[in-house]
Amino acid sequence: VVKSALAFLLAARRCEIGELERLAHTSELAGNIAGFIHALQRERGMSNIFLASNGERFAAMREEQVPECDRLQAQALSSFEALAGEPGAVRNGARLFNRIAIAMDALDALPLLRERISSRAIAAHDATAAFIRLIAALLAVVFEAADSAGDPEISRALVAMFHFMQGKEYAGQERAHGAAVFAGGHIDAREQQQWRHLIQQQHHCRDVFREFAEPAIAAAEAAAVDHRTTVQLERLRRLGQGAGAMPVDGSQVDSWYECCTARLDAMRAIEETLAAHLRRLCERKIAVARESLRDEQATLERLHRDASSQGADAPRVIGPQLERSVLDMVHEQSRRLQEMGDELETARAALNERKLIERAKGLLMAHRRLSEEEAYRALRQMAMNQKRRLVDVAEAVLAMADVLPGR
Amino acid sequence: VVKSALAFLLAARRCEIGELERLAHTSELAGNIAGFIHALQRERGMSNIFLASNGERFAAMREEQVPECDRLQAQALSSFEALAGEPGAVRNGARLFNRIAIAMDALDALPLLRERISSRAIAAHDATAAFIRLIAALLAVVFEAADSAGDPEISRALVAMFHFMQGKEYAGQERAHGAAVFAGGHIDAREQQQWRHLIQQQHHCRDVFREFAEPAIAAAEAAAVDHRTTVQLERLRRLGQGAGAMPVDGSQVDSWYECCTARLDAMRAIEETLAAHLRRLCERKIAVARESLRDEQATLERLHRDASSQGADAPRVIGPQLERSVLDMVHEQSRRLQEMGDELETARAALNERKLIERAKGLLMAHRRLSEEEAYRALRQMAMNQKRRLVDVAEAVLAMADVLPGR
Repeated sequence: VVKSALAFLLAARRCEIGELERLAHTSELAGNIAGFIHALQRERGMSNIFLASNGERFAAMREEQVPECDRLQAQALSSFEALAGEPGAVRNGARLFNRIAIAMDALDALPLLRERISSRAIAAHDATAAFIRLIAALLAVVFEAADSAGDPEISRALVAMFHFMQGKEYAGQERAHGAAVFAGGHIDAREQQQWRHLIQQQHHCRDVFREFAEPAIAAAEAAAVDHRTTVQLERLRRLGQGAGAMPVDGSQVDSWYECCTARLDAMRAIEETLAAHLRRLCERKIAVARESLRDEQATLERLHRDASSQGADAPRVIGPQLERSVLDMVHEQSRRLQEMGDELETARAALNERKLIERAKGLLMAHRRLSEEEAYRALRQMAMNQKRRLVDVAEAVLAMADVLPGR
Repeated sequence: VVKSALAFLLAARRCEIGELERLAHTSELAGNIAGFIHALQRERGMSNIFLASNGERFAAMREEQVPECDRLQAQALSSFEALAGEPGAVRNGARLFNRIAIAMDALDALPLLRERISSRAIAAHDATAAFIRLIAALLAVVFEAADSAGDPEISRALVAMFHFMQGKEYAGQERAHGAAVFAGGHIDAREQQQWRHLIQQQHHCRDVFREFAEPAIAAAEAAAVDHRTTVQLERLRRLGQGAGAMPVDGSQVDSWYECCTARLDAMRAIEETLAAHLRRLCERKIAVARESLRDEQATLERLHRDASSQGADAPRVIGPQLERSVLDMVHEQSRRLQEMGDELETARAALNERKLIERAKGLLMAHRRLSEEEAYRALRQMAMNQKRRLVDVAEAVLAMADVLPGR
């Protein structure tokens, strides 16, 4: 039966390897989505300026950006399809594929959106909002990938990556928001509030990123945006957010756009480092697990040899020392899996915040018949009015769920 | 791209079906383990009386029980092996197989234990303790199966089943404990405390069982043990736990044993109902999911037909109505998966208690160099001394983890 204990120890190890291989696939997917989102963010920024300038600026650059976007979209889609080709190989696959289905549906609207931008049949604000929705659908896929990771180290790396991507997207939204304000030459209280909200969300994402990223990558991130850009950014933020009804200096729109773009490009470099780290991490962990499997298999073969050399009738075919060592291996595996489970819970707790917000959004959608976007805006408005964090408002909404009338 | 959205909706559905099929396997495993544990509980009871009566009683019945045990052990092992044959098909497989490896190791000691019982080379108390360890290892496999369930309804059924099995095992331990007290003719304060602890644990398990079981099964459980047995049990418990140093009426040992055995057999019938319910539940859910998949596939085929009848170049090949219905399907799936996730968390929260106790045990083992059994006894002793629940003591121990010296 010690042989059987070892056989199940091996089965457990094979499950771990399978899980790591799945994670290598979803990590690859996250990396491809990051590249595609960056291209979409660029296209959004260019479209924004193109529309705001009545088609005078960025027309050619925008046209060139579209095929680049398409190339990266195709790359992302092929990794979606590779995953769908072996649905059994995805943990929590139902949720992940559902998120992908939603993203595919959002992508469906992209050609029409581009047509309307080209023919200037859409307002800059609406075009930006459409890109925001599409990117949010893609980020939700990465979130699901991070949430389904069964290895704590990879889970931490994916949590860091997701929050970095989300923070970068808030930075992109801030670029669009600020550009609209500078171009318009004035800012109202609601726009000020929204700007502050976008900055706060970036801080929050960066905090979570720094908590979960490898120290070396967190340090690289801290050093990535050069001092000059940061000073410039803060100066322009102050100028843009103005004071009361004071007019905003419209001539700063280009400086703002360039400063934000430099920042986003610097963030993109970090994102690539994160994706490369994730890939290496998966490879390294798979290699280590395979080596352990080989060692354990060698032990099992030794047991088989010993058993056959002693004849089939021998009731206790192995030495107590080897028996002891198998038992130690099983208990060591048990302890390690337990620790991994505990660490995993810590990493996944960082994702709870977003889940609470999603649930509160769903509640508002059902009870107040709001669209997803309206529900999010309602939550954000509550948070801004009450000067509380989005997650606190979400928790308050969920706590009220029981007293709300049924659907 | 709507076609793609639908394709990923289908992939999500296939993942759900795969998950349900996995759960059908692990549920089958839980049912087989329940049968094997019942046989072991009978063997433990008989061995206990056999040893306590210096081999005069239950000798033949015990000999007859061994092959019955072996038959059910073989059945449980074959379902372990079936699972190990497709390790990729098990969610959270590493932990499950590790638990099985530990159980296999515990089973390894069974033949030697039986030899020592036959030759009366072991004390009744030690034989009972050995059976308790083995059954605990098997219950841990069922716990892991319940913990890894990804469907809320099946998770609830497995949580109910696990707690019922655990409660029945405490009832079996109480039978052994009471039999030893009645046979010995006296009881001390520690034995009284331990007896109360075993009763409390049964109440706790029954409460969780009733919370999570199907109402019909919970009602069957409440009606299963006939009134006469319950009254008799309470009378004997009172007699057995005595008062202070008062001697215990040794002549009641047979009544006690019979009364407890009647109760365990009645519980076994409920366990069989639970296992059958779990099997039907898995079958029903798989059938429903497959039907949904067929419907969704038919929609996809209709889309393909429409697309080919309109020629490959048609940019928008499908009617807006069908497009709308695909989008509705995706969002409906999203909502359903979200709800399932929330319900699943509620069901799994019932398992947290045991996880906390396991973690506290692990901490004590590491820091105070205790065996698993010693660590459990230390926790139980703390709980009894402080008149607190085991889980509260476990939480207190874990809260102290940071101030304990490193390993």
